[in-house]
Amino acid sequence: MSKVGIDLGGTNIKAGIVNEENEIIAKGQKKTFAQRSAEEIMKDMEKLVEELLEEHHISKEQVEKVGIGCPGTIDSKTGTVIYSNNIVWENIELGAIMENSLQLPVKVYNDADCAALGETVAGAAKDCNNMILLTLGTGVGGGIILDGKVFDGYYAGGAELGHTTLIAGGEPCTCGRKGCLEAYASATAIIRIAKKKMEQEKESLLHEYNEIDGVAIFEAAKNNDRAANEAIDEYVMYLAEGIVNFVNIFRPEKVLLGGGISHAGDRLIQPVNEYVKKYCFGGNRTYIPEVMQMKLGNDAGIIGAANL
Amino acid sequence: MSKVGIDLGGTNIKAGIVNEENEIIAKGQKKTFAQRSAEEIMKDMEKLVEELLEEHHISKEQVEKVGIGCPGTIDSKTGTVIYSNNIVWENIELGAIMENSLQLPVKVYNDADCAALGETVAGAAKDCNNMILLTLGTGVGGGIILDGKVFDGYYAGGAELGHTTLIAGGEPCTCGRKGCLEAYASATAIIRIAKKKMEQEKESLLHEYNEIDGVAIFEAAKNNDRAANEAIDEYVMYLAEGIVNFVNIFRPEKVLLGGGISHAGDRLIQPVNEYVKKYCFGGNRTYIPEVMQMKLGNDAGIIGAANL
Repeated sequence: MSKVGIDLGGTNIKAGIVNEENEIIAKGQKKTFAQRSAEEIMKDMEKLVEELLEEHHISKEQVEKVGIGCPGTIDSKTGTVIYSNNIVWENIELGAIMENSLQLPVKVYNDADCAALGETVAGAAKDCNNMILLTLGTGVGGGIILDGKVFDGYYAGGAELGHTTLIAGGEPCTCGRKGCLEAYASATAIIRIAKKKMEQEKESLLHEYNEIDGVAIFEAAKNNDRAANEAIDEYVMYLAEGIVNFVNIFRPEKVLLGGGISHAGDRLIQPVNEYVKKYCFGGNRTYIPEVMQMKLGNDAGIIGAANL
Repeated sequence: MSKVGIDLGGTNIKAGIVNEENEIIAKGQKKTFAQRSAEEIMKDMEKLVEELLEEHHISKEQVEKVGIGCPGTIDSKTGTVIYSNNIVWENIELGAIMENSLQLPVKVYNDADCAALGETVAGAAKDCNNMILLTLGTGVGGGIILDGKVFDGYYAGGAELGHTTLIAGGEPCTCGRKGCLEAYASATAIIRIAKKKMEQEKESLLHEYNEIDGVAIFEAAKNNDRAANEAIDEYVMYLAEGIVNFVNIFRPEKVLLGGGISHAGDRLIQPVNEYVKKYCFGGNRTYIPEVMQMKLGNDAGIIGAANL
C-alpha cells in the first residue's frame, strides 16, 4: 500500500507518494498563494494528490492513508487547524474536509511534528522511537516522538518547545511572552545577536555583507571573525540550554536539529553536544542523547505526514 | 487484590496497603536512619511490609504488586536507584532486591512521579489521565502522567521539571546549572526572595519572625505586609512562567501543586491561574488547564506507588 504525505506551507503545497519502505516514489507541488480562501487552497491540495496518483497509475484503493503537516496550532484529534499564522487560517476542519473530498483517511498534525516523525521512520533518528526535533528557522518549532508516535499534547497547543522560557522577562517573543527559547535560538535570534556584536567591532567581516543571515555569520566565523564567533558562541549556549531542558524532561534517545541554522555543521553541532553533555541533570550517571542534524530536509515533512 | 505502596524518604519509610478502590486500608512507618547501609534500610522496608500484611491478616497471595517511590534519579525500567541525594544511594538495585526478598513484583519510580500517579487515581486529578504535578518544597519535583501512566523519560533522568531553565544564567541551582525553575519556585527560593525584600523594608512584619519560612511569608502577606506581598507576587510570576512552559509542552488536563508552599491557598493559586490563562501559547483559542492544589498529601505517594 502507498501513503500520501502533504506539506502545506505558506509558499508551497508539497505532496509525495510514499511506499512501504518510506521512500518517496513521486513528488509534486503547487504554489499556496496563501492569501486565497481556505477552500481554494484545499481544492488545490486535492487536485495535487489526484494528479500525482493518476500520473503514477496508483488507484485510490492502493492508498492506505493521507497525512498533512500544517504550520500553526493543530487539533490533531479532530484534524482542525485551530490557528495558523502562515496561511492565516482559523478553525478550518482541514482533516474532515480533505477526507470528504479525497475519500481517504486523513490526519493533520503540526509541520514540525511531521518532520520529527519523518526523521524517525526514515532519517537521522531511524534507529530510535523516542526523540526531540527542534527546527531553527524564523521561529523555533518542536517535534516530540514518544514510542514511535507523535506526542503533541493531550489538548491542542502542546509540543511548542520554542515557547518555553529560556530567560523569563528577556527578549520579546512572537507569542506575547518574554524570553522564550524561540527568541534566543531562532535564525532571527542569531542575526540579532550578530548585529549587536558587529556594532561593537568596526573591523568585523560582517560589515562586508549586504544582508546578515545565518550563512554570512558562519562564513565570517570560518574566516576567524571575532564578532561572528562570539555571536555563535552565545547562540550555542542558548540553544544548548534549551536542549538540556528537553533532555531533563524527555530523556530521549536522540535530539535532532533542522531548519536553516542546522546546516552550519560542526561549528554548531560540536559545541552544542559538549554543552549538553556537561549540564544535563545527573551528568555522566545518566544517558545523554547525541544532538545531530536532521537528514531528510524538506522530505522529512512529507514522509512524516504519510506516516501519521 | 491488595497493592502495597512504599514511600522511601530521607527521614521516614512509610508503607500502606491499598485496596482496589485505591483507599489506604492500613499504614505503617519506620525511621529511615539514612546514614545506614542500603541493605539495612531495605531489610527494614521488607519488615515493614511483612508486619503490615501480618497485622491485617493479608497473605502474600492477596497482594497484586508492590511499588516504591524514592527520591532521586531512578531507572524505572530496571528498578535501580541511579543516584539519590537524600538517602545517599548510588546504583542500588532496589526493585530487584525487594522483589527477591518480598517474593512479589516490585516497581520503583521517583517519589514525585508516584505522588502524581496517586493524585490521578484517587486525588485532585481523579477525572483525568494527563496531568503535571509540581512539588514545591526544598526543591521542585516534577511528575508527568500521560494516558494514565507515569512518564519519566525514555532513559532515567527525565521528568525533572524543576531542572528546566526559567532564567538561564540566573540563580545557581543545586544541579550545577544556573537559573533552573527549582532556583525560583522552590520554598527555598521564596524565602530568599522574601529575605531580600525585607532587607529593603525596615518596617516589614517579617522582621518579627525568628525564622522566615513559607508560613511566615503568607501570614505576613495576609496582614498586608508589603515586603511579603511583593515576594509572593514575584514568586507567583516565576512559578506561573514555569507552569506555562509545561502547558505549552504537554497541554495537560490539569496542573497540580504539592509540597509546603502549595498549602498557601488562594493567595497563591488564584494569581497563578490568572497568569497561566494569560500567557499560554495560543491564548483563549486553546484549552488552558486549571492549576490546583493536590489533595492527598503524603498519601499520594503511597497510593501512587501501589498503582505503578
